[in-house]
This record gives sequence, C-alpha cells and structure tokens, in this order.
Amino acid sequence: MQDESIFDELNEECGVFGIVGHPTAAALTYYGLHALQHRGQESAGIVSTNGDRFHIHRDMGLVTEVFSTETIERCKGTVAIGHVRYSTTGASELANVQPLVFTFARGEIAIATNGNLVNGDRLRAELEAEGAIFQSTTDTEVIAHLIARSREETIECAVKEALNRLVGAYALLILTNEQLLVCQDPHSLRPLSMGMVEGAYVFSSETCAFDITGAEYIREIEPGEMVILDDRGIRSERFAPPAPRSLCSFEYIYFARPDSDIGGINVHSARKRMGVQMALEAPVEADVVTGVPDSSISAAIGFAEATGISYELGLIKNRYVGRTFIQPSQMMRERGVKMKLSAVRKVVEGKRVVMVDDSIVRGTTSRRIVQLIRDAGATEVHVRISSPPVKNPCFYGIDTADREQLIAATHSLEEIRRAIGADSLAFLSPEGMLRGIGRESQEKNCGHCLACFNGDYPTVIEQELVGEGQR
Amino acid sequence: MQDESIFDELNEECGVFGIVGHPTAAALTYYGLHALQHRGQESAGIVSTNGDRFHIHRDMGLVTEVFSTETIERCKGTVAIGHVRYSTTGASELANVQPLVFTFARGEIAIATNGNLVNGDRLRAELEAEGAIFQSTTDTEVIAHLIARSREETIECAVKEALNRLVGAYALLILTNEQLLVCQDPHSLRPLSMGMVEGAYVFSSETCAFDITGAEYIREIEPGEMVILDDRGIRSERFAPPAPRSLCSFEYIYFARPDSDIGGINVHSARKRMGVQMALEAPVEADVVTGVPDSSISAAIGFAEATGISYELGLIKNRYVGRTFIQPSQMMRERGVKMKLSAVRKVVEGKRVVMVDDSIVRGTTSRRIVQLIRDAGATEVHVRISSPPVKNPCFYGIDTADREQLIAATHSLEEIRRAIGADSLAFLSPEGMLRGIGRESQEKNCGHCLACFNGDYPTVIEQELVGEGQR
Amino acid sequence: MQDESIFDELNEECGVFGIVGHPTAAALTYYGLHALQHRGQESAGIVSTNGDRFHIHRDMGLVTEVFSTETIERCKGTVAIGHVRYSTTGASELANVQPLVFTFARGEIAIATNGNLVNGDRLRAELEAEGAIFQSTTDTEVIAHLIARSREETIECAVKEALNRLVGAYALLILTNEQLLVCQDPHSLRPLSMGMVEGAYVFSSETCAFDITGAEYIREIEPGEMVILDDRGIRSERFAPPAPRSLCSFEYIYFARPDSDIGGINVHSARKRMGVQMALEAPVEADVVTGVPDSSISAAIGFAEATGISYELGLIKNRYVGRTFIQPSQMMRERGVKMKLSAVRKVVEGKRVVMVDDSIVRGTTSRRIVQLIRDAGATEVHVRISSPPVKNPCFYGIDTADREQLIAATHSLEEIRRAIGADSLAFLSPEGMLRGIGRESQEKNCGHCLACFNGDYPTVIEQELVGEGQR
Amino acid sequence: MQDESIFDELNEECGVFGIVGHPTAAALTYYGLHALQHRGQESAGIVSTNGDRFHIHRDMGLVTEVFSTETIERCKGTVAIGHVRYSTTGASELANVQPLVFTFARGEIAIATNGNLVNGDRLRAELEAEGAIFQSTTDTEVIAHLIARSREETIECAVKEALNRLVGAYALLILTNEQLLVCQDPHSLRPLSMGMVEGAYVFSSETCAFDITGAEYIREIEPGEMVILDDRGIRSERFAPPAPRSLCSFEYIYFARPDSDIGGINVHSARKRMGVQMALEAPVEADVVTGVPDSSISAAIGFAEATGISYELGLIKNRYVGRTFIQPSQMMRERGVKMKLSAVRKVVEGKRVVMVDDSIVRGTTSRRIVQLIRDAGATEVHVRISSPPVKNPCFYGIDTADREQLIAATHSLEEIRRAIGADSLAFLSPEGMLRGIGRESQEKNCGHCLACFNGDYPTVIEQELVGEGQR
Repeated sequence: MQDESIFDELNEECGVFGIVGHPTAAALTYYGLHALQHRGQESAGIVSTNGDRFHIHRDMGLVTEVFSTETIERCKGTVAIGHVRYSTTGASELANVQPLVFTFARGEIAIATNGNLVNGDRLRAELEAEGAIFQSTTDTEVIAHLIARSREETIECAVKEALNRLVGAYALLILTNEQLLVCQDPHSLRPLSMGMVEGAYVFSSETCAFDITGAEYIREIEPGEMVILDDRGIRSERFAPPAPRSLCSFEYIYFARPDSDIGGINVHSARKRMGVQMALEAPVEADVVTGVPDSSISAAIGFAEATGISYELGLIKNRYVGRTFIQPSQMMRERGVKMKLSAVRKVVEGKRVVMVDDSIVRGTTSRRIVQLIRDAGATEVHVRISSPPVKNPCFYGIDTADREQLIAATHSLEEIRRAIGADSLAFLSPEGMLRGIGRESQEKNCGHCLACFNGDYPTVIEQELVGEGQR
Repeated sequence: MQDESIFDELNEECGVFGIVGHPTAAALTYYGLHALQHRGQESAGIVSTNGDRFHIHRDMGLVTEVFSTETIERCKGTVAIGHVRYSTTGASELANVQPLVFTFARGEIAIATNGNLVNGDRLRAELEAEGAIFQSTTDTEVIAHLIARSREETIECAVKEALNRLVGAYALLILTNEQLLVCQDPHSLRPLSMGMVEGAYVFSSETCAFDITGAEYIREIEPGEMVILDDRGIRSERFAPPAPRSLCSFEYIYFARPDSDIGGINVHSARKRMGVQMALEAPVEADVVTGVPDSSISAAIGFAEATGISYELGLIKNRYVGRTFIQPSQMMRERGVKMKLSAVRKVVEGKRVVMVDDSIVRGTTSRRIVQLIRDAGATEVHVRISSPPVKNPCFYGIDTADREQLIAATHSLEEIRRAIGADSLAFLSPEGMLRGIGRESQEKNCGHCLACFNGDYPTVIEQELVGEGQR
Repeated sequence: MQDESIFDELNEECGVFGIVGHPTAAALTYYGLHALQHRGQESAGIVSTNGDRFHIHRDMGLVTEVFSTETIERCKGTVAIGHVRYSTTGASELANVQPLVFTFARGEIAIATNGNLVNGDRLRAELEAEGAIFQSTTDTEVIAHLIARSREETIECAVKEALNRLVGAYALLILTNEQLLVCQDPHSLRPLSMGMVEGAYVFSSETCAFDITGAEYIREIEPGEMVILDDRGIRSERFAPPAPRSLCSFEYIYFARPDSDIGGINVHSARKRMGVQMALEAPVEADVVTGVPDSSISAAIGFAEATGISYELGLIKNRYVGRTFIQPSQMMRERGVKMKLSAVRKVVEGKRVVMVDDSIVRGTTSRRIVQLIRDAGATEVHVRISSPPVKNPCFYGIDTADREQLIAATHSLEEIRRAIGADSLAFLSPEGMLRGIGRESQEKNCGHCLACFNGDYPTVIEQELVGEGQR
Repeated sequence: MQDESIFDELNEECGVFGIVGHPTAAALTYYGLHALQHRGQESAGIVSTNGDRFHIHRDMGLVTEVFSTETIERCKGTVAIGHVRYSTTGASELANVQPLVFTFARGEIAIATNGNLVNGDRLRAELEAEGAIFQSTTDTEVIAHLIARSREETIECAVKEALNRLVGAYALLILTNEQLLVCQDPHSLRPLSMGMVEGAYVFSSETCAFDITGAEYIREIEPGEMVILDDRGIRSERFAPPAPRSLCSFEYIYFARPDSDIGGINVHSARKRMGVQMALEAPVEADVVTGVPDSSISAAIGFAEATGISYELGLIKNRYVGRTFIQPSQMMRERGVKMKLSAVRKVVEGKRVVMVDDSIVRGTTSRRIVQLIRDAGATEVHVRISSPPVKNPCFYGIDTADREQLIAATHSLEEIRRAIGADSLAFLSPEGMLRGIGRESQEKNCGHCLACFNGDYPTVIEQELVGEGQR
C-alpha cells in the first residue's frame, strides 16, 4: 500500500475500453469497465453508436452503480467506448465524467482518455484567450477544442494536428458516428492493448478486460500510433515519429491488476520476481514475511520463496465497499476501531517480521503500518520496498506531489528508516526492478519511464512545472 | 389538461431562482426550486459562491431527489442560483442539467435560463463554424460562447454584447464569483420577479418561491433590463431599448402555480375570472361543471359561480409520483387500468356536464376526456375552453408543434366539436381572456404575447421557422 | 386539515385490497394500493398465491418505492391481497408491515387489516399468558393467534370463532392457499366494498381503487359478513348476528378520497353538501371563502355556492413528496421558510375571509392557520368547521387522543373561538352533517358511528379505556 | 472455492456479535458485523437497549447498505446484539432477517443465532400442533416459542429449559431489556468467542470482529455454557452436562476469515499447514502451484513452500460487488463472458499446474476450474484438496446436500479424478488435516466434528434425516 497521500494527488489515472463491430458492444464494454474498475472508482460512462447517433450513459459511481440492464440496452449500436475515472479531490463533479461528448461542425464526437498532459494548463490558457469555454477540468476537453479548431479536411487529420500540440501521456479513444480512432502518445507512457473477440476489435488499458470478455490479446498500440477503424476496415497510421517506448513502471509496481499482462509480461509474475530480486539484493534474517495488501502480496511471496522465510498473512485489509460505509468518528478511532489495515496478532506476535511494500512516497503510511505490526507484538520489523526510491514528481498522471514532499528526495536511506521506525530498510535498485519486470531491452531505460526514480523525463517538461516539482 | 402531445414538444420551459447576500443562500434556493418544481421535473441544480470559487451540485431528478442536507451544506456562500428543467424527449442527458458552469478567460461563470431562442440554431451553427464545441443541446451554452468570445472589457459589457445577438425569450441568471447578473429579454416573454428576504435580494420565475422562503415581492424585471448585484450593491441597466412587454399568456392559462402572482396578478384569480368570462360568452344549460385537473379547476369554479351550475369533482387525476411508478402494459391498459385521469361516475352519471379545460392543442386529449365522461354515464358533455384557439406555433419555448398539427389552425369550431365528440364547444375570445386576466393596458395586446392565438409575434421570426410552422 | 397532532395518534388507519381469479392479480393489486396510498404511506405489501404457495413482497415506503416491475412479476398467481399502512410514531418497524404472513398447523396464512380492536391489548395479554409470542404491535397478529389456537375443523370456522372474540373495528382480508376470506366487523365501522373486473372479484377499502383498475362496484360488505372465495366459487356467510351499520363518519369528513363512493355516496359530493349545510346553519358576511387543503376544499366550495361568496384559493399546500425532503432547521423556520401550508397574500389581503376546515381536534393547527391568513393581510377570519365538535376519543382506529386533549371536550364554543383567534366560529350540527352526507336512514345515528361527537359507542368499551379517554 | 451448489444448500451459516456495557454499543456492533460480512450477505440487523426498550434496525442487504449513521445513532443504549445472515435460495424474505424480536409475557426479547437444529422441523410441528404461528422459516423462532411456553420463573431458567429440547448446532445471543444471555450448544459446533474492549464484554462468531473494534480476545464460550450479563455483572452457568467439544472443521477449511483465530488457532496459519501436510502426503512434480481464491490461497502457499514449486496467481476471482451487477445473458456467457473465476494464461500456459482447493462437494465446480486452467494452456493439472473427502451430509448448518449428491460418497478416488478431468488428485487425510489445524488433543476427533468426513455425528440424528441423507 502506498502512502494514502498519493491518492489525493493522483491525477487522471483512469481506464479506457473500446470495441468495434460487435452486436452487444455496450454490454461487453460494461464487463470490460468492470474489470478496469480498480483504475477508477469515481465515475463511469459508455457512449455507443450505430452509425447514426450517439447513445450516452454516464454518471458518478462504480460501474455496477452507474449501469443497469436497462441503461446498457439503451446504448445501442455495434461500436462503443467506455471510461472509468479515478477519484480526485475537489473536482468530483458531473462535468468531469468521461467519455466527454461534444458536437462541433463535423457532428458528434466522444473522447475517453487515460493520462495527463504536461502542457495541458498552457493549452487551456491559450484556448481561453481565444474565447474558448470549458465545462470540465479534464485534459480531454482541451483535446476536443484543438480538434474542433483544426482547419484540416478530415477528422483524422484534425486529430493528428491536435495530438501534435500535446505533450504528455495519453491513451486515447476518439469516437464519431463514422470512426473509432485509437491513439497512443509518442512515448507510450500509458498501457493500451488491442485484442479481438468474435471478429470485433477491442482496446483496453489492461488485458484483464480481455479475459472477462473472452477476447484474445493481439498487441500493444505503438508509440505515436493511431489505429483507425471505420467502414473501410482497420488501418494503422502514425501521427508522430517513432520514439522509444517509455511505459510507466508504476503500472507493474502498483496500478495494474495482477492478472493483466502489460507489454506481454504478467503483472503478478513481474511483482513476484521483483520480490525475488529484493531478496537477492537485501536479504535479512527473520521469521515471517508479510506483504501490504493488495499490491505487495506478489512481491512478498517472491521474497519469501527466495529467502526460504515463511510467507504469512500478517496484515489484512478491511474491504469497505461503496460510499456508504460509516467512517468511525474521531472518538471511535481513538477507541480502537481500525480502518483499512489490521495486523494479525497470532501471526506476528513474538516474530521478526519482513514487511514488503511496493513503494514509499511520503513515508507516513509506512510509519503507520510498521507501528501496527509492532503493536501486534512483532519483535523486529524489516521493511523491503520492491521499487526504487521515488525522488522526482510525475507529470504524466500518477503523482503530482511536490518534490519536497517525497521523503526519498530529501532524506537518506538511514533517515527514512528512522522516520518509519523500521529495524532495517531497503529499496530495490532500478536495475533489479527492470530485471524483475523482465526487461533485457536495449532501449534507453529498457523501454520504461523511470523519471520518478532517476529524473530522466521522456518528454520536454516546461520550466514552471519543474520548479513546481522542486518547490 | 392540455394535449399530452404538447408535453413532448415543450422546449426549455424551466424555472430559475437566485439569491444574493444571505447566509444560507443554497438552502433558500433549495426551497425556492422546490416551489418551482412544477416548471421542470427532469433535473435540478444549484451553484453557489462565497466570492472565491463555485460550489456546484446538479443531477437528473426531482429537487428532493437531487439534493440532501449534505449536498446543500456543501454549497457554501452567500450567493446562489438554481434551476429546474423540464423533461424533453430524447435529450435527457446529464450534459443538459443547468445551471451550466464554464470556465473561460475571465474565470468561472454559471448560467441558468428559462426561455427559448428563435435564432439559437443559427447562432450555434455560426459558432461551430468558428471552431466552437458544444456539450449540451441548450441555448444556454450558445449564450456562454457568445459571452466568452466578446472582446468587451467587463463581463457586464460582454454579456450585453452577447444578449444583443439573441432573438427570443429568456429570463437569465448569470453568476460569476464577483457578480450576479439578472437579465430579461427585450419583450419580457418569460416571467421573472424580484423580491427580498432579510436584506437579501431574491429572483424567481414565479412568486410562489418567494412565499415559501418568506420573501417579499418587490417588482418584475423589466423588458431589456439587466440587474447587476455585486460588492457595490445593486443597480439596474438596460441592454436593449424599451419595447412593449409581451408576457406569455400561457403562464396564466397553464404554466404557473395558482398561488403565484405574475405581473402583480394572482394566477388562480385570473383563471377564475377567465372562467367567469367564458360563462358570459358561452353559457349553457347543464347540471354540473367540472374542470380538468389541475390547471382548469379555477376556471371551472369561476364558470360555475357565474352560471349558478353546481361545481363538482367529476374528473380526478392520479398522482404518480416519481419515476418508479410501474406503467401498465398494453394488455393492462386494455383491461382498464386508467392512467392519469379518471371520471367520477357518481358525479357525472345521468348528468349534463360542462367540462372546462384550459386549452386545446391537437385535440386528442380532449377527445379522450370527453369519452371518459361519457363512459361514466354523462348524458351531455359541453366543453368550454378558457383560452382562445391555438392557431400558430410558439417559438419562445412553449410548443414547437408544426402549424398543421394544431387542430384549431386547420379546423373550424364545428369540426373541432365533432372531432372531440362534444355536444357543444366554445373557446374564450382573446378579449375575454385579457379581461379575465385583468388587463386594461393600452399596450399592444395588453402587454401579452398572443402570437399562438393571433400570429402577432413580438420578435422577428426567421423565415425557415415560419415555414416549419406552416409545413 | 386536521390538527397535526392527530396524525401522531392515528392508529391502524390503513387500506386493504384483494382480488380473486385474475391472471395479473398482483399487478392489479399494485394499482389498487396506489389508489389507496392516501390511507397509509409507511409501508406496503402484497401476498399472492397460485394455490400452491405464497409469493410475498413487503417493505417500508410508498407503493411506488416498495414495488418494481420485477417484484410484481415475482408475485405470481391469480389471487392476491395487499395493504398500505399508515405512519404511526415509534413503531415504524419492518415487523409491522402488512399483510402479515404466518405458517401454522394448517399451512400458510396472510392477513391484512384496516381497523382497530377495542380489546386488542386484553387479548394480547391473555395470549401471552398462554405462551404466545408477538413480533409486531398490530392487532392483526392477535387475530392470527386466535385463528391458530382454534380447535374448529375448518379454517372458516376457526376464523369465525376468532372473530367472535374481537371487539372493535376491522375490515379483514384473510388469505390461504385455498381461500380468500373477506370479513367486516359486526358494526361495519370501516368501509369495505366489493367489485368485479373481467370476472374477477375485487375488494377494497375505497372504490377509487376500483376506478383505476377498471372494476365495477357491486356492493358493500355487510356488518358481520364473511365472504368466502375458493374453488367452489363465492358465498356469503355470517359470523355475527346482524347489528345496525355504524360506519365511521370521519371517512366522509376526512379520510376517504373525494372520488370514492362510500356506502354508495360520493365523498366529494357529501363534503360539498356539508359545506352547504354549514352555510345554512351559520352564514356570515365575508368577501372570500377558502378551504384548508386538501380535505376541506369540497366543503368550502359548497359553502361558497350556498352563500354566494366567492370561493378563492387562499391557502396552498406545499407537497413535499417522499422522505427525502430536507426539513428546514429551526433557524430557517424562524427566517420564514413556510412548511406545509401558505396563505396566498394576493387573495386574502384586505379581505374578510371564511376559512372552512373539516374538523378541530386540539385546536393548535386551527390557531396557526388563522394566524397565517391574518399575517397575509386578512381583515377578518371566520372559521366554519364542516363537522360537529369532537368531544370523545375514538377506540376504532382514528384518534386515541385522551379526552382532555380534545379542545371541544373541555372548552365552550366561545372559548375555542378565542383560542384559535377567529372572528367567528361555527361547527356543523350532527343533524346537518348527516343530512349533508345524505342519510335519511331510520337506523340509529343514520347508520353512522358518531361516538366522537356524541359518545354513543356502537361496541362495548372496556372500562379502562373509557378511563383513559377521560383522564 | 467449493462447488457453487453448496451455496444453494447452505442453511443458517451466519455471524453473530454482541456487546454489553459500551457507550457506543450499536456502532461497535456495526463494525463487528462488517468484519463478519463474509458469513452472511443476505441481511443484517442490530437490536440495542438502554434497559428500557429495544431499538431495532434490520433489513435485507449488506451491512453497509442496511445501516447509515442515522440508523446506528437511533440504536441507543449500552447493550446491543447484531446478526448477518447467509443468502439461501427461496426464502429470502424480510421475516427471516435476524435478530428476531418478540414480545411475550415477560416483555421484549431478541434472538440471534448461528447454527442449525437437527430437530428443528419436529419441534416446529409440535408447536404448530399446539396452536403456535410462525412468521419465519428460522430455527430462531422455534427457540423463541419454547422460551415463551416455559413455566419456569426466571428467563434464565426458561432459556435453559428451552435449550434442553434442542438438538443441533447453535451459537446464541438472547437479549432482553435486563440481560444478555450467550449460549453455546453442548458440542460447541459453531465458534463463539468472548473478548473485551474498554471494560465492555464482546461476543463474536469470529475474532476478526474483535480486531476491528479494538477488543482483546479472552476465551471461547464452552460447550453447554450460558454466560449471563446483567446488572449484577457477568457469570457463567451451564445448561447441559460437559460434552467433548466438536467444532466444525469446515470453519478452518472454508468459512472463517484467514485473520480470525478459532479455538486460539489462526485460520490462515492452519490452512497453510494443511497445505504443507498435503505436500507431505501427496507431492507431485509440477511447475507452478495455484490456489482457488479466496479460501484456498493459504493452503496453496503452504503446498508451494513445502514442495519448493513456485506459487503463482493462476486463477483470479472477479469481485462483483452488490446485487446490482448485471449478469451476462446466456448468449453472452457462450460468447465468453467469464464469471467469478478466470485463469491467467500467462501464468499457466505450457505449465504443469498444481491446483489447490479446499474441498470437493459435488465435483462440478472442480471440473469447471480444471477445464479453465487447461483452456488457458496448462499441460497438466494436478488437483490437491486440503481436506478429506466429504462423504456424509451435515445437519448442523453447512450443507444439506443429500448423500447421493456428494461425489465422494459414491465414487472412488480414481472415479472422481476422471470426473473432474485432473491428471492426478489427492485429498488430505483426516489425520493430516487435524495435524495441519494443530490439534494434539486427546479428545475424540481432537475436538472437532468430522461427521461429513467420517459419519461420526456428535449428536443424535433423527432417523428420517439420516434417510434423507442417504436417499
């Protein structure tokens, strides 16, 4: 489990799903979005078309709350796109529910995005200066304006022109009544896979959505690629020159579902191998290994297998489903009502415990978990982090924490260890992480964005943002 | 009750409420919107501000469904505007929920409108040609674009410039974090009143919203007037030269709540006097008078008082509250499950009945009601309509039925009588109607828009529209 | 409108509906219950059978909230009974939702009741002393125990034995998988009508449920009658010797829907004639007549017609639908947010107003309404009550207010007038009320229970209760 | 994962929680029930008392759906009991929602039960013959009748008399306004633990409810023990002679949460050790070990650790939360929409897979999972079941499948292997299972009920039931 604080700063981590040429397009999109639910719990939406006009259903809430048999049936047509959106603070408003739908001179258009623009605010300001109005705080609306203002003759060319003004991460689905355009940013920062079910092409942020819908995986969308699906069939074009792939490494570390394959590599297996690497790099004498649920369980099992220390269920997550769970009052919290995470006394009492977690951002959550395990009677707590120290802010949608809030940016390893109260602490090396993921690539950074670890951003970063990061 | 068909064609009949300078602005707006609920059941929204930023809550549904204590409390600030929107077919989508909220070069802006533009489609096409994108099908979004594209220095001037491009009916509330602008179209087609409660100014489509919030009525907003409320207080400006007031007469006939005063005249009393006029113009020998609920009850009582015929409850409306009512299947309808309206056998059996209704649009509903009363045993049914025959389409938000669908546009009185199956039929004369409302004004049409009766439209009507009306 | 307080004390005012021999029995019951919704808003339930086993759906809430197409469809079978229950304070619990369903030695049984037993508490205590357990606070459960303990051979005889131990008011539907038993107490205190739709027999507390389902009225169930419907057809038996009918007069005064016929007399017409009687007995010089909505409108119109004074809409009821309406805080109430009832200033300002209400129980509500009208500018307020003074408690389900709380039990007419702040006050005489209803019967009290007016209770009243009434 | 079919036959597997002497008793009960949610998702209820009267809130649904801050606050008092109930087919009706609440001669009483009576039907028939009526299908109502009919002087004695007529499994909480009685059946078939939080005694089916509320574990309730809590404090009595403890072994195998301790033994650890035992008894050459989520993961990890074969996430469970998930139509299922469980191709493709599951009941689910793994490309599938073959029906609340439906009752090991399509199959021996759990007890069956494995029922079983089991 990462710092809780990270969730407050997550910007635009979302899931997208699209399908072309299936008689029950909206229904399959529903199941696909359900599989992608972990990527966004704030809102969900589907737009479908039979070639004539859009059928739209969108609302705040979980996929199962937003849709019913009736609303899915009303989304007619053989083409559909869908979106789940992460809960970001403050701006939880209807206007941000995606896919965004617009009409413009060429008719209807719907856009669903996963990612974050580095130059989103600048583009927005430029557009506003030209008289544009915005109803949402999403980058998606910026993209829509750019497309609408293009003087290019075809929608494809207008989209290409628009995309060339963008800097940042974006996996994009653009739907009109005639076409579906599937676009991947020139660095391929966010995952986007193509598959097929019963002759219909499907596109998804993660392959777990293929499994539930019975689709076969075909390939990833390439950096700078635009896949066009219409009456004439499917074809691939390029809107940007080939650049090395820089897939966000946090997809393996934290975001993706363990049963998804990203870039052809199974996420659970990658995590487990990162745990094994951790064991090779920083072994420790202990009685039990435990992982912070859910994202660190695989790495913990890998660590246990490699060291021969017994893996045990030392921490348990309380699954409060839905928005209706009654939060304990301050009084009750003090009285001991435990939220989210409990340590299992019987497992850790009197034991030397290795606690495997996937990352440390601000350090506050790690400190709390170490304390939980000590309170349950552990004699030693050794923390092993299955990723390198996060020292730089992300501008591509993960974490906009200022640099100064990142504990690893300003503290030494020993200082962090003391801050979180661990008996020992180790991070996985960048090389170990890439080896764990399974990269032997000759590409720079092995095809991954490691900017949050090493500051090597794949795109231009505007000076103000860097400053922001360093404030 | 009007033709059911009229409901399918109603466009933009809505209610607006605004308040400036009250510690519980959003709560009073909630109560105000509740009083205006009859003007729009599809969606409701409130935007409030404390001068820094907007607090927004909007959704599909009734006022009581959309808001909770919690959401009202989250709408902080001393200034708020609210909107209820009528259910129109097809386009029932989140994107149309008002107040619409935008950001543009000058910051945040929220707009709530009651009315309909005659040149809305033309303006939209012009804007799209210039690269504008639209997320809703509302005229309100057109207005927002015009404001954003203005080069005027102040927001007030930008709004004035925008309004001068509009042709049609609009009662408008425009909110920024600095100002509330309250605008009435140059013909004052839709009602908009100003009041005061505890030092706070309130604005509402109908005065019934003043009563519930304890506000005192001050006056109507004038044709072409813009009331500006900000830090410097309240002031009135004019964005259009004075034109004669042309208030929609259907507000008295059908739309407004009987306890509202419009233009200083109580709606129930006006309706009752129209019933009295009807009795003077077209008396009839009968045993009982009954009104079609709810809007024709007052006129029926007036007719009964003036003729001395006993008023009885011969028709009863079934109030199905909410969207959860199970509609009877075709089979059940045939088996006799009566929807919406029933005749009370005990009251009409063996009687000569005068059925007072407020209007006839297509005639189909009147035919059904006459039949209901006959089936319940009435020996004669005399229909008295407390308004003149509707012969021309409305372009200001009431009814966009093509001219050819208006039964009175294509049929003689005797033909209509036969079509609806009545023993006798009479409409109120335009003069009788105005006398009933209480107009002795020297203004043309006594300050009312009578276009649907006499074709005398207060604004320019584009030729295509007229054609549409005459198709 | 009656005292608000009366609502707090209403006990067991409910609505029942039953149908035998219809392919969509549960659906028609749904529509029937919807028409009876005014008799109970707390909970609703339907039990149906195809002869094999019960299908049950019951819950707290309005009819439209409790049932969906799906739940109605699950209530299979050609026989069904339904119930709506009034909201009583405190005991709002699932266990009280009717129809109650039990299994006992003879199989399944469901019971729906409207009414109140005088000896309910005594029977309950006796049963408990014998080891009975109770899950609800309803009299219905008492009846179930009595039936189950009967040693009679047939269920009909067991029911008869049980009913003979009851004292009080009850209109009863008893369903087994083999039979529907429809029972009326020996004094016929609560209304219960029989009708027919497409060959199926229907039973309802009010005939408005017949109208909505397309059923024809046949007759009332007789005092002490048990109608039995089963494989052998329909037959009528008697479980008690014939006693004079003593139908609750408050059904005409307040409870029933105006379009219902009770005992063959239309409720609206009866109310209007009571208003006429009132005008004959206590005319007054005034400018306008207004009624307290909803139940007093008919009487007010009658009063206006008879006196020639103009009927106007001087009071308006705010219809807050559902449990989700946000109640104004104390602060807001003081600031003027008006609940439930508003006076229409334009109508009453500067006028001498006759305010017609249906009854006075404690006097507090009347005082508030008089004040509302004065605050809106009326110069005089003359109160006319279209029923006699309530001087005695009801033990049959209407009002269990102790005698001392009934203002008319302890105060003279002049004292009441002063207490409610009216310029003049008159009650309708018992004779006027009966004449208004239309009774020329030779039966004692013309076939009505007038106990609350004259203390002449149709049943034995246990001494403790009388004491309670007189405390 | 067990056979899906088992869920259809589960009877009365539930969770109970109680607390005495805490200022926020109902709130802690809410959190406790939330931790017990896995034991019952159909309905939830809380009854609290401040010594005067009960406060009750119960409904169908998950704990988070049934309760809100408001309803919890309305459950006043320092004493509370709560219940979650498993979803059983058919009888999903309000009347079965526990705690059941009754009034009887001694006042109010509420009962919450986990377990199942062997002689429940017989007792019910006897009671009905004596005139008793039943509103639910629960054994709890039988117990209430027995208590009410007792002639004993005190409630404690009445309860003891009633319990002595019961045969079967029951962990019981009985609440009156004066006392809480906590009772464990004479064989202790269902778990029931006692703990303490801030001086208040708590009781729970599982200790995971202690952890969330901050309570410390004290001890298990003993076979035949009745703990009495009232004004005089806490005391322990005995209503049945001491019998050997026979705790259901399926609590360790399947039911309990892995972080609960049952009988002082952590469930996860017990499961892991059962996996280790399995590895000792039936090792196999393979590439990966995977567990059927959720209940078999711990055993799979144990098997992997003991054999040195890599543990991988080869099966993933789709978590459809709530009743609103749209079930795929038959057509979609055939098109490949996978429900509940998917195999992770990347993990099992081309591998020899050990699939660890906790039990086999009918064999149909195992066959489906083996097929899933093969379809995903596994070359071999070796099934290891971490419990012995289930050969006898359970009469204590787990599984009422007839004997003939239990595949292990009628098929040899080799026949089962072939039926489920595995390359090899092994069950854990009873001795291995007990060793895995950690029992070195000298008690018969080591203190466990092993009846489903060896037919050695701890209680008398009525002949009809045995017949039923053997049909």
